Formats: sequence, C-alpha cells, structure tokens
Amino acid sequence: MGPVRLALLAVVALAAAGEAVYIPYNTSAGVVAGKLNVHVVPHTHDDVGWLKTVDQYYVGSNNSIQGACVQNVLDSLIPALLKDENRKFIYVEQAFFQRWWRNQNDMIKDTVKELISSGRLELINGGMCMHDEATVHYIDMIDQTTLGHKFIKEEFGQIPRIGWQIDPFGHSAVQAYLLGAEVGFDAFYFFRIDYQDRDTRKGTKELEVVWRGSKSFGSSADIFAGIFPQNYEPPPGDFYFEVDDDSPVVQDDPLLFDYNVEERVNGFVAAALAQANITRTNHIMFTMGTDFKYQYAESWFRNMDKLIHYVNKDGRINALYSTPSIYTDAKYAANEQWPLKTNDFFPYADNPNAYWTGYFTSRSALKRYVRMMSGYYLAARQLEFFKGKSKLGPTTDYLGDALALAQHHDAVTGTEKQHVANDYAKRLSIGYTRAQELVSTSLACLTELGSKPHCSSPTTKFSQCLLLNVTYCPPSEMDFSKGKSLVVLVYNSLGWKRQDVLRVPVFSDSIVVHDSEGREVESQLLPIASASLNIRDKHVKAYLGTSPGVTPKFWLAFPVSVPPLGFNTYFVSSMKKSASVSSKSTVYSSQGSEYSSLQVGQGNLKLQYNAAGAFSLYSDSKTLIEANFEQKYKYYIGQDGNGSDPQASGAYIFRPNGTVPIKTDSQVPLTVLRGPIVDEVHQQINSWIYQITRVYKGKDYVETEFIVGPIPTDDGNGKEVATEIVTNMATNKTFYTDSSGRDFIKRIRDYRSEWKIEVHQPIAGNYYPVNLGIYVEDGNKELSVLVDRSIGGSSINDGQIELMLHRRLLHDDGRGVAEALNETVCLGNQCEGLIIEGKYYLKIDPQGEGSRWRRTFGQEIYSPLLLAFSEQDGGNWANSHTPKFSAMDPTYSLPDNVALLTLQELEDGSVLLRFAHLYEAGEHKDLSALASVDLKRVFPDKKIGKIVETSLSANQERAAMEKKRLKWKVQGPPADEKVIRGGPVDPSKLVIELGPMEIRTFIVSFERSISGKQLL
Amino acid sequence: MGPVRLALLAVVALAAAGEAVYIPYNTSAGVVAGKLNVHVVPHTHDDVGWLKTVDQYYVGSNNSIQGACVQNVLDSLIPALLKDENRKFIYVEQAFFQRWWRNQNDMIKDTVKELISSGRLELINGGMCMHDEATVHYIDMIDQTTLGHKFIKEEFGQIPRIGWQIDPFGHSAVQAYLLGAEVGFDAFYFFRIDYQDRDTRKGTKELEVVWRGSKSFGSSADIFAGIFPQNYEPPPGDFYFEVDDDSPVVQDDPLLFDYNVEERVNGFVAAALAQANITRTNHIMFTMGTDFKYQYAESWFRNMDKLIHYVNKDGRINALYSTPSIYTDAKYAANEQWPLKTNDFFPYADNPNAYWTGYFTSRSALKRYVRMMSGYYLAARQLEFFKGKSKLGPTTDYLGDALALAQHHDAVTGTEKQHVANDYAKRLSIGYTRAQELVSTSLACLTELGSKPHCSSPTTKFSQCLLLNVTYCPPSEMDFSKGKSLVVLVYNSLGWKRQDVLRVPVFSDSIVVHDSEGREVESQLLPIASASLNIRDKHVKAYLGTSPGVTPKFWLAFPVSVPPLGFNTYFVSSMKKSASVSSKSTVYSSQGSEYSSLQVGQGNLKLQYNAAGAFSLYSDSKTLIEANFEQKYKYYIGQDGNGSDPQASGAYIFRPNGTVPIKTDSQVPLTVLRGPIVDEVHQQINSWIYQITRVYKGKDYVETEFIVGPIPTDDGNGKEVATEIVTNMATNKTFYTDSSGRDFIKRIRDYRSEWKIEVHQPIAGNYYPVNLGIYVEDGNKELSVLVDRSIGGSSINDGQIELMLHRRLLHDDGRGVAEALNETVCLGNQCEGLIIEGKYYLKIDPQGEGSRWRRTFGQEIYSPLLLAFSEQDGGNWANSHTPKFSAMDPTYSLPDNVALLTLQELEDGSVLLRFAHLYEAGEHKDLSALASVDLKRVFPDKKIGKIVETSLSANQERAAMEKKRLKWKVQGPPADEKVIRGGPVDPSKLVIELGPMEIRTFIVSFERSISGKQLL
Repeated sequence: MGPVRLALLAVVALAAAGEAVYIPYNTSAGVVAGKLNVHVVPHTHDDVGWLKTVDQYYVGSNNSIQGACVQNVLDSLIPALLKDENRKFIYVEQAFFQRWWRNQNDMIKDTVKELISSGRLELINGGMCMHDEATVHYIDMIDQTTLGHKFIKEEFGQIPRIGWQIDPFGHSAVQAYLLGAEVGFDAFYFFRIDYQDRDTRKGTKELEVVWRGSKSFGSSADIFAGIFPQNYEPPPGDFYFEVDDDSPVVQDDPLLFDYNVEERVNGFVAAALAQANITRTNHIMFTMGTDFKYQYAESWFRNMDKLIHYVNKDGRINALYSTPSIYTDAKYAANEQWPLKTNDFFPYADNPNAYWTGYFTSRSALKRYVRMMSGYYLAARQLEFFKGKSKLGPTTDYLGDALALAQHHDAVTGTEKQHVANDYAKRLSIGYTRAQELVSTSLACLTELGSKPHCSSPTTKFSQCLLLNVTYCPPSEMDFSKGKSLVVLVYNSLGWKRQDVLRVPVFSDSIVVHDSEGREVESQLLPIASASLNIRDKHVKAYLGTSPGVTPKFWLAFPVSVPPLGFNTYFVSSMKKSASVSSKSTVYSSQGSEYSSLQVGQGNLKLQYNAAGAFSLYSDSKTLIEANFEQKYKYYIGQDGNGSDPQASGAYIFRPNGTVPIKTDSQVPLTVLRGPIVDEVHQQINSWIYQITRVYKGKDYVETEFIVGPIPTDDGNGKEVATEIVTNMATNKTFYTDSSGRDFIKRIRDYRSEWKIEVHQPIAGNYYPVNLGIYVEDGNKELSVLVDRSIGGSSINDGQIELMLHRRLLHDDGRGVAEALNETVCLGNQCEGLIIEGKYYLKIDPQGEGSRWRRTFGQEIYSPLLLAFSEQDGGNWANSHTPKFSAMDPTYSLPDNVALLTLQELEDGSVLLRFAHLYEAGEHKDLSALASVDLKRVFPDKKIGKIVETSLSANQERAAMEKKRLKWKVQGPPADEKVIRGGPVDPSKLVIELGPMEIRTFIVSFERSISGKQLL
Repeated sequence: MGPVRLALLAVVALAAAGEAVYIPYNTSAGVVAGKLNVHVVPHTHDDVGWLKTVDQYYVGSNNSIQGACVQNVLDSLIPALLKDENRKFIYVEQAFFQRWWRNQNDMIKDTVKELISSGRLELINGGMCMHDEATVHYIDMIDQTTLGHKFIKEEFGQIPRIGWQIDPFGHSAVQAYLLGAEVGFDAFYFFRIDYQDRDTRKGTKELEVVWRGSKSFGSSADIFAGIFPQNYEPPPGDFYFEVDDDSPVVQDDPLLFDYNVEERVNGFVAAALAQANITRTNHIMFTMGTDFKYQYAESWFRNMDKLIHYVNKDGRINALYSTPSIYTDAKYAANEQWPLKTNDFFPYADNPNAYWTGYFTSRSALKRYVRMMSGYYLAARQLEFFKGKSKLGPTTDYLGDALALAQHHDAVTGTEKQHVANDYAKRLSIGYTRAQELVSTSLACLTELGSKPHCSSPTTKFSQCLLLNVTYCPPSEMDFSKGKSLVVLVYNSLGWKRQDVLRVPVFSDSIVVHDSEGREVESQLLPIASASLNIRDKHVKAYLGTSPGVTPKFWLAFPVSVPPLGFNTYFVSSMKKSASVSSKSTVYSSQGSEYSSLQVGQGNLKLQYNAAGAFSLYSDSKTLIEANFEQKYKYYIGQDGNGSDPQASGAYIFRPNGTVPIKTDSQVPLTVLRGPIVDEVHQQINSWIYQITRVYKGKDYVETEFIVGPIPTDDGNGKEVATEIVTNMATNKTFYTDSSGRDFIKRIRDYRSEWKIEVHQPIAGNYYPVNLGIYVEDGNKELSVLVDRSIGGSSINDGQIELMLHRRLLHDDGRGVAEALNETVCLGNQCEGLIIEGKYYLKIDPQGEGSRWRRTFGQEIYSPLLLAFSEQDGGNWANSHTPKFSAMDPTYSLPDNVALLTLQELEDGSVLLRFAHLYEAGEHKDLSALASVDLKRVFPDKKIGKIVETSLSANQERAAMEKKRLKWKVQGPPADEKVIRGGPVDPSKLVIELGPMEIRTFIVSFERSISGKQLL
C-alpha cells in the first residue's frame, strides 16, 4: 500500500452522516435601534443596451459577448422572493421589466402584483432606462421617466420614491432637482463622482448630503443624495453570489467540509464597520448586486439569508433585508442635519488621467439623431392629439419607446458597442417611420376641408425629408416643368409665432414661391456645394440602398411665417418669367489676400473676414456690439494607452496626447454666396473639414454648418476634432454650460466650487457637457454658442470657447466596451470613417442680454419647423385644403419665456400637458418673471372638464406629492431665498402660472371636442 | 445631423409595442407512431469530485477552479419542474442528491416526492456516484450502488431502471451484466468507447446493442446498451442553454428583434435527422445537458419548451420531454432484434494517440488505499453485526460513504486534482478511524468472557496498525522486557479457515510466540531493511505529524491459523532462554557472480537466481512445474505534448515516448534472508527502486514487494514505471485480464474481438485494467500475476506480462484535470516525489490449474487478516478472554468456490447477506460446479425468521425483478447455452445454491439472537 494520507483533519467532529440539517434562517430583522444597521439591498443593474442590444440582454442571446439574460433575472426572482417573505428586491429598468411583464401569464402577474404591493419587490427610479445625465436633454429625461412611471402606476398603482442613478458617469443638477425632487423622489442614490471628491467626502462623512440642484427653486427642490463609498456592488470582502462567482459561499452544513460561517460573518461585520466609519447615523447600505446579476436569484438570496441569520446571531451588528426606500426612511428618522451640496457632479474622473469627458461627444451623429427625433416626437404628439389618437393607425408610441431607450447611459452617450448603436438607430428609424406616417395623416386631416371628424384616411399624401441633412429630399427634387408644383406645409410646434428660412434642394433655376394667400415670396437659389453632393451620393446609397438619382443643383431658400401650434402652406413652382423667379445667389470665389476685407451679412449683423479666412470682426448694428474673434479647428491626438500608463482616450475617456492646430489650406479658395435671404461663406478647411458660415438677413446670429470627416487615421493616431472661437474677452477662467439643456452652471477652470481639486488633465478635466449652449462674459458682453446636439465643450483659455465636434479613436479606453470608437460608413466592403454634419450658432450680446437668445432661440433649435411635402397639379390646393392653421386662439401665443413641452393624448382620451418656464430666477431682467398661460386660449375649441396638476412624471397629484415628500434638514443657517412658483390653477380661470424654471404638468380632460374623438 | 442609420430592417413588421405576448407552450407530446420521435432528455452530469471536492461541488465553493454548484441545480430544478407538468428530469449521483435532500424542509420534500412518484423527476443509475468501471472492484461497485439504491427505495419507494454510466472511460463487462442486468436495469447508456469502434457502429447502426457481458450467465444477463453517437451533451448545432451559454436562445417574442424560431427549429430537425440516420427504430435521444449544468434549470427548460412547441408545430418530426426509461420502453416496444455485443469496451481511445490507459495506474497509492479500505469495510461490517449495530457508537457508515465516493470515475481513477485526491483520502481516513473504533470494540466484546449482551464499553482495548506498510506499528514496538506481552488478535473475514504468516515490527531479538492454547509457535526475525526504515521515518512524520520514536529492528514473522468468520489470538513476549526464541534469519550478501546459483525457498517452491540478479528458474516440486523467466523493471518516458502533436501522457492517457530498461546496479549487493518461515531476497534495483522477493515455506507462490520512488524527474521527463516478467512461453498474442476483479476476459494484442482496429499506440493500446490479476498460458502452463490494487497491465510480447506500478508525469494530458500527475509528499516545505509500496504475487501452474489460486488466493488478497493488538501483564489473558472464535458452526466452512461478500446489519435489525461464487462456468474442472451454502451452519446461534432474495443492490425482490425486466431480442440464431444458477431457497432447509459466477443477495431477519440485540 502506498503511503496513507491520514489527514490530520480526520479528527474534526462531524455530525453523523444522514442526519437532516435543514436550517430555517431567521431573516425577519427590521431596523434595530442602538445597533449598526446594515441594509442589505439586493439589486441588479441591467443596462438597456451596452455590449449587447436591449433585446439581446433581455432574452440572453449573444452571450459570447457578455453572459447576461434579464429574463433569467426576473424569472428566477419570483420563486426566490416567494421562498421567504423577508427577502426583498428592487427593480429599476422598466424597458426590461415591461418586456418581461408582457410575456407573463395571469398567474405570474397576480403573484408579482402581490409582491409589489407588499413591498417585497419595489420598482424604483422607474424610467424606461437609467438615463444618462450629461448628454441627454431634460425633455427626453422627463419623457422617458414619464413613460416608465405611467406603466408602474397603471399596472401596480405604485409611485417610485427613489432615484437610483447608480451608473451614469457624473450627475447633473437637473437630475437632482427636476428628475428627483420634482418627480417626488425622497432620495437619490448614485456612485460615480470624481475620485478626489469621493476621497474628501469619505474623510468628512459627506457621502450623504442634501442636494440643492436648482438656484431658482432653492430648498423647495432639495433631495437627499447618497453617494456609494466604493461602487454599486457588494462591499469589499467577496460577497458576490452569482452563479459561478468565486466568492466563498456561506457553508453552514456541519456535515460537509469547509464550514466557514464564522469567517464569513467576520468578513461581513468588518465590511460593515469600515463603511460605518465613513457614514453618518447607524444605517449603512450594502448594494448586493451589480451588472446583470441575479440570473439565478436564489443563489444570492440563499447566501444573504445565511449572512443575515448568522450575523444577527453573532449580534455585533444588525443586518436586514432592505430597500433604498426603507433605508431612506431610516436615514430620515435619524433626524440628522445633512451637509449641503449645490451645482452638479461633472466632470467625472475615476483616476488622475481618466476624465470621462470624451463621451460628451462620442458618436456625435447618434447624439444628433436622438436630439432630432426628440424634437420630432414633441411635434408628432401634438399632431397625434389634433387628429385623435388611434389604436389602429400608426402612433408615436414606438418613437417614444425608441427615444426612451436612447437616453440610456450607454446609448446617447456613445459608450455602447457599434452594433448596439446601430440597434438604437434602427429603433429610432422605425419609430420615426411610424410617427412620420401619423404626422402626414394628421396634417392631411387638418388641412383637408370638410374632412371627417375622426379622420383616418385622408386623400392628401404628405411626405417628409429626414435626409435633408445629406441634401436629399425626393419630393422637392420633383420636375416642375410639367405644371406640377410643390406644396410645402410647415408645422410649428412652438407656442409662439415663428419666422424662419426654409431650405430645400431643387433642380430648376427658375422657381417661384407663393404663400398660402397666393402672394409671391422672395426666395434665393444657392448652388449646392460639391462637398454636400458627395455626402449625398454616398449616404443615400449607404442608408437607403439605392442611388439618389438625378442631382439637384440648388438649395432654394425662402422665409416662412408660421402661427403657434399650427401650420402654414407654401407653394413652389416653375416660372419662366424672369421677373418673379427666385434670386440666384451671386457667387464669389476669393483666395489669399483677395478676401482680406471680405464682409458678409445683409442685415444688422455683419462678419468681416481677415486674410487667414477666419473671420475677425463681428458687428451688430442694432446692439452696436463689435468684437474681434477668430474661429478655427484643431484636433487632439487621442492617447493610445500603449505607454507605461495604459489609459487610452476612448468612448468614455478624453485623454489628449497633444494638440494639433488645423491650418486652412490657403490654396483652396473661399467661396461666398450672396443673396436677398442669406449670405454664405464656404470654406474647405482641409481635405476632411468643410464649413459653411451663414448670416441671414433677418437674423442676428451666425449659423455655422460643419462637415467633419472622415477623420484620417493613417498616421496611427486617433483624433478628436474641436472648433474654437477665440476672443480677447477677459473671462477670468469662467464659463457657463447648461445642465441637461436647462440651468446654466458656472464653471471655473481647474476649480470645483465645493471641494479642492488637483486637475492632472488640464484640457479633459475642464470639459463639460453642452446640450443647449455654452457662453462666456466679460462684464461688457456675452459670447454664446448654441448647439444642435449634445457635445463636449469648454473654455480652455480666457476669452475662448471650444466645442468637440467629432471623435475617431483607435483604442479602447478600458471601461468595458472593449471597442475602439472608430465609426465607419460602408458601401459594400468599402468603409470610410464617419462624416459628421452639424451646426452651431453664435451670437454676441451686450452683458445681461444673452439669455433671451439662448433661451428662446435655443427652444427653436430643439423644435425646428416640421416640413411636409405634397404636390399639386395646377393651383387647386386652396379649393380643398386649409392652408393655414393654429390650434390656439389665433390672437394668442405663449409668452416668450414659456414653452409647451408636452401635449399628448393618453389612452383614456385625457391629455398630458406640460409647460416650462425657460428662464432661471434672475437670468433676465424681464423674462425671469412669473409667466402665465391662458389655457382657454390654448384650447379655444375645447372645454376643459377637469385639470389635475401632477408630479413631473405625471404619476401622482402634485399636492399629494408635496405633502408626502420628505423634507430634509440641512446643516448651517437657513437659506435666504425667495422662490417664485406659480399658484394653484383656478378651474374657472384656467390660467397656469409659471415661476422661473418651473415646469408644471397636468392631466386635462376635455368635456367635448371638435375633433370628434368622443364619438368613438 | 450626422448620417442617419435608416436601417433597412426598419420595415420589418412588428406587433404593436405593449401588446401581451404570453405564449403557452404545448409540451405535452408523447411518442407519436410513424414519426421520428426525438426524446429530449434533460440531465446534468455531476462528478462526485474532480476539479473540486464533492462538497465544494455541492455548495458551489471554489468556483475559481470551476463554476459548479449542484445545490443550484437541485434548488432550481423544483420550480422549473412545477412550472410545466410535461417537463422531466433525471438525476443520477446520489451523493449529491442526499446532501441536498437532508437540507430540505418537509414542504420541499413532499413536493419532490410527488415529482418523483409522478415520473417527472426520475432517479436513475442510483449509486452514490457514477463509478468507474476499470479501476474499481466489483464488490465496491455493488456496495456503492446498494447504498444509493437503498436511499431511493426507502425515501421514495423507487427502483431505478436505467444504468447511466455516461462518462466513465471505457466500460466493463461486469458493469453490463452485474451492475446492469443483475441490478434489474432494463438498459444501460454510456458514451465513451473507442473512436474507431464508434465510427464503425455509426455506419452499421450498431450504437444500440444487446450486451451479453457474462459468459457464465449468457442471455440471462443480457441488457440493452445504448452508446451515444457523439457525447452526452446536446446534439450538434448549439443547443446549450445554461446561464451565460452562447448558444442562440429561441427568440420567439415578435416584439423583439432577432426572432429566430424558424432557424432554431431547422437546426433541431437537422440534428434529429442526422442522428436518425445512424439509429435503428424511429426513436432517438437528445441528451440535453452536460457537466454541472442546470444551475438555473429554467434557462434550459424555457428553451426546450419552445423547441418542443415549435418543432411539433413544424410537424416534420415529433419532439417530446422524455427520460431514458421512456426512451427504453419505446425502443422495446419497437420489437426490434438488436446486434449482440459481448466482452467489454476497453481500452478507450478518443483519438489515435490518446489511449485512456494511464488512469489504470494513476495515483497508485490512492488505488491501494481504496482497495485496503474496501477489504476492511467488508470485515468491519461483519464485526458490526456481531456486536450489534448501535446508532450511538462508531459505525462503519462513514467508511461506507467514503468508499462509495472513492469509486467515482474521477476518484480511484486518479484523474482528479491533487486537492480532491486528498479529500477522498481524508474521507477514507475518517471512515477508517471510526470503523477501527467499532472493530476494536466489537473484538473486545467478542473476546471478553461474560461480556454483557449488548456490549458497548468493554474494558479490553485493542489497537490496529494501518501504517504497517511503512513499518510502523506502535503496539508491536512495545518493550517486552518489563514482563508485558503483546496480544495479537487475528480476525479472518473469509468463510473458510485460513493459514497465513503474520509480520509485525519488533525491537527485541529474543522473542517467543505462543498460540491461544499456550503452545510455542515457530517464528522468525528478519532484520528490517534500511529502505523500509527510511520510508518509515519520513512518512510517519508526514502523515501523523510526529516522529515515530525508537526504531524497531526486526520483522517478526510467524504462522497463524484462523477459523472462518472468526479470530484466533497469539501472544508475543520476550524470552531469555535461547532454546525457544524465534529464529533469526541468516543473512547473506551476494554480489556479482557470487549469486549465479543462488536459490531460495524452503518448501515446494524454489527460485534460482542467475548472474544478473533477475531470477531465472522457478520450480515447484509439487506440481513439477519448472520455468525460466526474468523479472525486471523499465520505464516509459511520458510524452510531453510539446511537439506538433500536443497529446501528452497524463492522468488519463498513457502515451509513451520511448522505453528505458532499468539496469540493476551490479555494485549493490543482493541480500538474502533465510529462515524457517520465509526466505527473502532484497534487491536495490536502482537508487529509487527496492524490491523484496519472498518465498514462504508453506506457500507455493512468489510474493514480490516493491518500493518505487521518488521517481526522478530532473531530466525533465515524466516516467511511468513498469515491472515485467519475461518467459519463453508461446502465448500467441493472448493474455487474460479480469473485468472489475471478476470475470477474466481474453485479450489479444492489437486486436479487438468484435471490430477491426488499427492500433497506433502499440503499448498503450494494449493495456488493460487489472484489478485481480493477469495471466498468460501456453497450453502447458499458466503464468498468473495477482495484484494488491487496481493497476494497468498487458502482455506486450509473447510470454511476457507487465504491470505499470507507478506514474509520475510533468504535463497535463488535456482532458480537463489541468494538472500534471506529479504526486509529492512533503515534510515542511521539502517535497519529494511520492513513493509507492506494494506487492504482487506470481505463480505458475499446470495448464487448467491456475484458476484455483487466482480465485481463492485472490480473495485472500482482497480480504487480508485483520490484526488487533492489545497487551497483557503476565499470562492472565485467557482467564478473562475467549482466545478463539468463529461465528459459524466450528465444523463448517464455506466451499472453496464461495465467498461471503456482505454480512451487514441494517437499521431495522435485518441483515444484508451476499454470497458469491468465485468461478466462471468452465473455468475449473471441479470448482466451476454448483456450490451450496448451509445458512443454518453459517448462523448456528441464530434462527432465521425470514429470508428474501433480492436484486444485487437489494432494492427489490429478485423474483419481481426477473419478472419485470425487459427481455431483448438479439439478431441471429439463439445462443446454445447452458446457464447454471442456484435454485430458490427452501426456507426450511436454508441452503443457498450458487452457480458459476453467481452472486446472490438476501435480506435475512433473525427471530432471536444470542447477541441480545433484541433486548434493546
């Protein structure tokens, strides 16, 4: 016999084999006074798309990319929760929950309803996704949250109490006060803040604070904010219990080897004491879960049952199954005064060279698509309401869903894999296609005289041109020679009358435009730049699969005037008589010194170019503003991460490794187009940047269109392209950027207002998200730049503003996406780097006056005029069509400081109505005042039966919410504040008042309607 | 706006979002006549230890080695089965199932009982583990199966119908006929057979056969055997549905993207048609699972539900939830004639250079430990019965459990990781420690005169010496000088009287031995070799943690005679009178040519050595056999797998890369010890092989003890050490090896009896497992070698036999264990290669006579005499102790051809009794006859109240089993066979007849007993 391994362990006392060792675990602990209470919060964090698409995550396909199946999570959760009534779980992402819910039978649904109503399963946060907070627009945040909350309210009668934004990469003030307090949340939990900030807060026990995100609302929108000390995962010490995780399971069967209860209890207690040491009150939270965990929920609960049982038997601390709600109530009950936090948590860095400021621009095309669809969705819902919502016909619902998904913190952020980005785009495209049908039908109904009350199949066919940005619009490219003319119906979703200039591509050079009363409208033909045509050919082929056909020659530009919440109609036709045809632009081509004194602008605003082709003098004859500045391009070389410090620049992280100015090729002539409507300056900046600067006769701002790409990478470098506007303004390190498109927040270079920072990345560490705009001021004037999408921006030097327009990178930045941000467009097998087309708008105002343009014109950028095209044979349109329409009293328009955010018919025929005051308190001397909306004039043809003001997400009455919401105590003296909010709505007067920044949400029921919906 | 990704897929028709898509799957299909029926068999294969220990697998710890948690499997299974009454599952490994069962509360237990009784959960195979079939002894197979079947019967009233040995590395005849047919199984399914055999069978549709494993039993022990066409996993085409698996899930939600029902159905149907193409009848089985799968069972069932639903909707084939039982019944109902298979499926190769014949020897020390414990367990249960089983005192249960686990196909096989091998050894050690206590107590009770009926605390203390193999036995190493003497109680667990020679280490050189009647017994002192003492010092320290103390000088050898099922007592003391002291051996040291004519042997058998030190002449004066042969050592260099063919030699696979003869160092003298009892020849073969050859005066065989190791590896080569016996016998490529220690099967080099083979590995491809022995014959004589453990052996050349004794390898062989088989023993941080100590036995008989020694002496090797030591002060032992005992009638012993395999008291006081005929039909002219056992004389003091014959695993009445068991039709003419089996037992006569190879199992109830157990 070989040597016998007479293990010394042989002497351990073991119970007799065969003996039953069923152990009923006592998990019934609640909060225990006088002990450290560990709130064990089981949760899963399920990205609504990231490495896989949302559907792939749900069904668990494509697991070779990432093992993740949300269906498993929810399926396995139910028996796990039923197994022990003390077990609890929170679920967050409604896009997944709804997918799952509609797959369930009634038995499961009833069970889940019981679990939810008893609080064992709590739906928190409650939007369709856990939206990003940097690159999303507040209107999209509201919409996607409303969508999720509505479902929760309708199916379960529940109102989420807790904000749970645990993963987004930094946190916005708007999230805290608007999507937090104004939604009715009692608390808001998250994790990603600057590592230096976190370290400081640990030392001062300031990870839990009261966050006052709104200057305008002050303490009335305070919210309790809890920042996790480490991450949103279980505490240190190996407490991961997913199937196949390698944390030691709690082995408490005395008949088996490796019994480890004492060791595991000690580890748990140690983790708790460590966390208690940086936390106020005797309540701490253990976030028991992480990305896509609980695929087999029992595996977690089994171990948590044991931990709670044995930890409480041990007695040093008290562990309990909890939820963030229970935790919040315990925190509140402690009656503590909390440190105050204002402003926001941007930018986010997780180590000295890792500022997550790249994603402010990543996938700039997707960001624009999302923004464009957002504005379209707003308009389409108005038209859906006017027509009457139909379950049969096309609706805006799919677009709403697609937009909701796109707000996810790995969607519009650009931090998802390419195939997932494609999935978001596909969904938007489907949603747009359906909404477009609805819009066309609704416009046809509204315009057709004598159309039936519930109009569903009008004879007029409208089409729309989503691809106008690549100079493609089949309806306007028609042949006018055969007597047909183009009907352009222009819809304005804003609540005020609007003057604007339209542009559509046309073939003919002899065109005449008429308005709806038959008057000729002055128009201008601008030769289409070959840069635009190149894009057109390639992208129409790439995206539609067909060649675009004959190439149009001109942009036809003409001014339009559209009533609020309504439309006007214009007619474009061919006209041989030279007198009345549209003016062809005069075209100059200047080169080198020739354009040293070139000046454009037919109205108040004039731009004068210097020798280098960067314009140098801005002058506004109305405001008398004169300012010199230079506008130019540069790129940052993306750090490749190959050196000793492996941090590359990537989808998340901006880490420049040198700045390269882009010199304009002086050999390429600058082209100037002049005409009665607009002057354009075309510049081929280099072989892959084209720029058109426009000054409209009737507008006092500069519009700059940029076409950037394909960014070359044949030198092996990723590049991040920025444009900058350089002035000599003394801006003292200070600039302002918006928070999620709403409040402007003061930024100071290399400085954070509430904590001491050492910035190791002087460029990346000063970038901020720009959704609406960025501005600087010098006490004398304000330089504002507004954007057409979410984008990263900064003021890297005094007097300077820069915007990052496009990023193409060759390395992954190590935050999980595992792909370089290297977007391409392919024709067959031929792929080229993606080209970005976009616009920004620039204006210089006297100090104190900039906000009016930023706010009012900013709203117009968000809500561009909606164009629908038809054609007529001869001039008979007016015989059978209403050419002009406003839903409002024709003599009424909303005040300049109020926007209609939502007008949406709900399933029950009631209407969701949301108005927003556009100005902050003190922002503008006149426009920051209390505003009011006369609902009777907004709905002149309808009688409002009932109006209920609700929380921002429309899931509870506002009054009840205010009564219920926890009021938190703040350290220090009470704030000296004067908050203006509108008063209650008198049902007889029906006037809605709005204080600065106020957004008020209502559910309105109409008693009768001229639209005849009630006939259904 | 950037280019819009207007995906063309946008036009796919999708149901409206929000619509419920709950789909009730129709999984109710049964077998459908006229269609191809796909039996979908959900299963998991849970190794009872491999990369992790059995307990680690159960609780899911140590997941960094392998993500596996059986508790998850069984926990998640229950809700999954409850979800749909058509879902089915089989569970196999009772070691896991029992661990789980005792953790459950009554509610779950009731649920599971219902699931089992309704057939939705079926327990098949049913042993504690899925035992190996090459390196296990049939008694261990029976014991571990009985243990599992007992639990299943008692808890659930179920009798497993199906053998399910899907993973063991080749399959034995004994498994088929004994652990298959004789257990009552209707069919037996497995997968691992030689790849060439499989390929052939695919072509001829002979993967499903009737296996007739026993020549003696013939068709009476036929069983239906199904060999899987590919593996035991789902069919080709990605049908793995474990959490995180990357097979495409069945995506049938029309609201989500990537709907793939058609594609998945087509894949399923294609897989089915392919398998149908190589299978008889219109039934095929899909084994839906693999190692440690179903950790979240719902993940599999969800997808299988869909597959069954949509495949049946498709209609080309019929898919149904099934079990191997249902499948077997369907096969049987087809009323087909099946091809016949005899012999076995060894050796197993999965490709040309990968013969799984290394594991026949891997972990040779563990193999010996298991075999030693097996024999001890048999004896201990007898003594437990004699004493009366007590729930309070120590029992043999733990040893039984430990042994059961050790039979697993990654346990005794040596194919587990080192830490897992340690775990098996630890369990055996604990089991042995407990059983030893029980044995000591029982022997004390039996020997103490007037001890109380239910004897639990006798005053006599016995101790035992498990470490005798390393020359360590504290009780015998006592100091006799102070008048104390050593009491040696010798227990014989065999049913026949036994003469043997004992050996114990002693200090003194003046020793006298007396028998129980006070007569002096001739004895012999043999100086202990320094090789043995080196091993002693090191291993006692390594395994007990203490130094062994003063070193004994001699082995004391003396003959003993012990009654059947009983004991005798011997007394060893010091004696100054030189007349009667034990003879000191005369010691010669011969070197080189000196021992050219050296002869040893005092009895009939003499060995004569040649000049090289390898003995050359064997002569037996009784049988007149004379034969020349050489005995020598060699090693194979283990292929390192570094070349172009990456297959290394490893724990599983034997792949020699050259043979190196081991030359005896002619400088080292050969030492001869002679004396009245035994002659020994000591040879230091090389620096790491020591050999002692013994010829006992009263025995006609050669005993060879080998000490091999540490195998040096400093040349970078792994080595596999074999010993060989070379004769000039003309054996015509033929040799015989046992099947699991029972039937001998004829082997022919480079040939398989039922299929055409091309052997690419001429050595490895001819290795077979040896549990009992191996022999060759030339028509004139038989050369037999018997072994003390499971070992690999062959006859590589005519007239030759070789045994692989020890393997030390430096590379993993790529079959999953991911460790080189490089066993070491450590003292502190000092580790050396493991040393193997063992014995083999050799005899040459006239043709036709070898079987008697092989069978009868083979049984004695399996059941060595059990020694218990005590001491007496003076000569008063006999006053208070019975020195001699037999449980049987003193005038009775079992026939030479019958062994008592099991005598074990069960919980209810009844007794499990098992007798085995030791000879095959025709094996021996006299001993292959019908034998009979007179039970009344076996139990002379007890009255048998009831005797029921059962199946081999004792879980059903034999008669019922025979009636129930399916009889399968075989192709071709009926066999011409004459099967002899014992007749029914007449309860009045109580004589048990046994035909050749027959094993009969009984449950016996005694009406009264002299042991007084009934008084409890």
